[in-house]
Amino acid sequence: MKNKITDLFGIKYPIIQGGMIWNSGWRLASAVSNAGGLGLIGAGSMYPEVLLDHIKKCKVATSKTFGVNIPMLYPNIEEIINIVIQQKVPIVFTSAGNPKTYTQRLQSHGIKVAHVVSSVKFALKAEEAGVDAIVAEGFEAGGHNGREETTTLTLIPMVAKAIQTPLLAAGGIATGQSMLAVMLLGADGVQVGSRFVASEESSAHQNFKQRVVDSEEGETILTLKELAPVRLIKNKFYKDLENLYQKAPTKKELKELLGRGRAKRGMFEGDLEEGELEIGQVAGQLESILKVEEIIENMIKEYNEARRKVVEGEI
Amino acid sequence: MKNKITDLFGIKYPIIQGGMIWNSGWRLASAVSNAGGLGLIGAGSMYPEVLLDHIKKCKVATSKTFGVNIPMLYPNIEEIINIVIQQKVPIVFTSAGNPKTYTQRLQSHGIKVAHVVSSVKFALKAEEAGVDAIVAEGFEAGGHNGREETTTLTLIPMVAKAIQTPLLAAGGIATGQSMLAVMLLGADGVQVGSRFVASEESSAHQNFKQRVVDSEEGETILTLKELAPVRLIKNKFYKDLENLYQKAPTKKELKELLGRGRAKRGMFEGDLEEGELEIGQVAGQLESILKVEEIIENMIKEYNEARRKVVEGEI
Repeated sequence: MKNKITDLFGIKYPIIQGGMIWNSGWRLASAVSNAGGLGLIGAGSMYPEVLLDHIKKCKVATSKTFGVNIPMLYPNIEEIINIVIQQKVPIVFTSAGNPKTYTQRLQSHGIKVAHVVSSVKFALKAEEAGVDAIVAEGFEAGGHNGREETTTLTLIPMVAKAIQTPLLAAGGIATGQSMLAVMLLGADGVQVGSRFVASEESSAHQNFKQRVVDSEEGETILTLKELAPVRLIKNKFYKDLENLYQKAPTKKELKELLGRGRAKRGMFEGDLEEGELEIGQVAGQLESILKVEEIIENMIKEYNEARRKVVEGEI
Repeated sequence: MKNKITDLFGIKYPIIQGGMIWNSGWRLASAVSNAGGLGLIGAGSMYPEVLLDHIKKCKVATSKTFGVNIPMLYPNIEEIINIVIQQKVPIVFTSAGNPKTYTQRLQSHGIKVAHVVSSVKFALKAEEAGVDAIVAEGFEAGGHNGREETTTLTLIPMVAKAIQTPLLAAGGIATGQSMLAVMLLGADGVQVGSRFVASEESSAHQNFKQRVVDSEEGETILTLKELAPVRLIKNKFYKDLENLYQKAPTKKELKELLGRGRAKRGMFEGDLEEGELEIGQVAGQLESILKVEEIIENMIKEYNEARRKVVEGEI
């Protein structure tokens, strides 16, 4: 499975674990890297000192390469950038901001930079900023998401055609079949989120993990588009939002209902009613909480089995 | 490429042309059937006598099998059903309604019935109704669409797992690569819409065809969810809708703005400003208006080339 992405990051399989808030601590990231993928610590839900602690623990837990995901709208962004540089974190995935801002500075310290986009337009901007890899994420992805609503199936071929930079597909991928599918469409690898939420090593609350594997097709929705579009499970909090939407709310009213700490409350503290439960559409495919090692082994088995079907003419 | 779908319909390639309103007359349907796919006449925009005329002309234009797509909310539905039975149309695709209503009656006349769904739940209902094939259509598809907003990439594996009935994937498919991709996910074939809109044989207005091939990623949106969700190009009519949405409109106000005949005005009469321009996200991938024969040849070439890459270990 050697390709542009495995070469770039020095990993065995072109499988990146998305650095998701409240889910992606050192346990998850190191487990993914140890299993042959690339684990990312999710800085988006960590104070700088918490991130520093996770980076240090991750280094102890794996001798393999790992990275940090940094949403650039983070209030302590300068401090976070300094920590990853000082700690010589080898790989940084940036999202939610302008890739020009930090790419060169990080690269000048030998850090490989990937940037997450949701459209062809932003993929071109990321390439112009000189990033080492681009993650193109479709509408089906969990959590914060693009405004274009382009799905992974349609987005990947268009981005692949527009850029030369190594490309990771994200959104809707939890199996080896879907991994091979997006690679046929032009991706060099995948970024997987939801599947790793429902892993033993994820730092999500057990209630949330269970809710994810219990959920069925059609249970998530992209909402709060007036603030920042986010895909979540339709729970009580979402019903409250829906009721508010009936009244044509202002942004301020939406912000007030959202309040602070909803995502933490839902995903980290396990409040399935009042919390914000961010997850992708692919949650409907997940049936059990697995160890990271099993998740990656399954994906590779499925990928090889899908390849075999093509090779032997079954498809 | 012999499989469940080619056997069921007696066609060469498992490529179905969606029976789209204002686009799918006898010229398009017969051209697709002559090129080895399955052409469908779109009854949704035809008065009964117009449909009868198209069926008769289609029979003259091709000796191959063809079908009719019937949206079951059609006001003259009984008349339409009688016409396809009397005319011995071999295949009917139904959509937008309960598959129990007509499936058995059509089948008792030797007609094969496929039904279009947008969710696992409706796929199970279609299977229960005894349809011969199920089309599962994702969020990226053009025109009228499901409320679950599940994308093709995530929907197909879930539907494939839930049902035994032969399965066609729809939404986001315009190339042989995406055809192979969805077949890896469990589909037995594809239903293609947008790509055939931009064909020489489509009955769409030249202005609309050109607008489709000129459009880029992010130019379509799923809107009018309060009435019936529909994916269309963001033109002046959509901007007017958007302005109305700012004022928290009632359903009645939305219906008033929509008015009557918008789809005809846009797609058939070529009014790109005031018309409703229904098309899928995959329009962003289309570059030129092609002959149906070329479209199908290209898809098969791309499909074989994608298979070759897998067989030779490039992917």
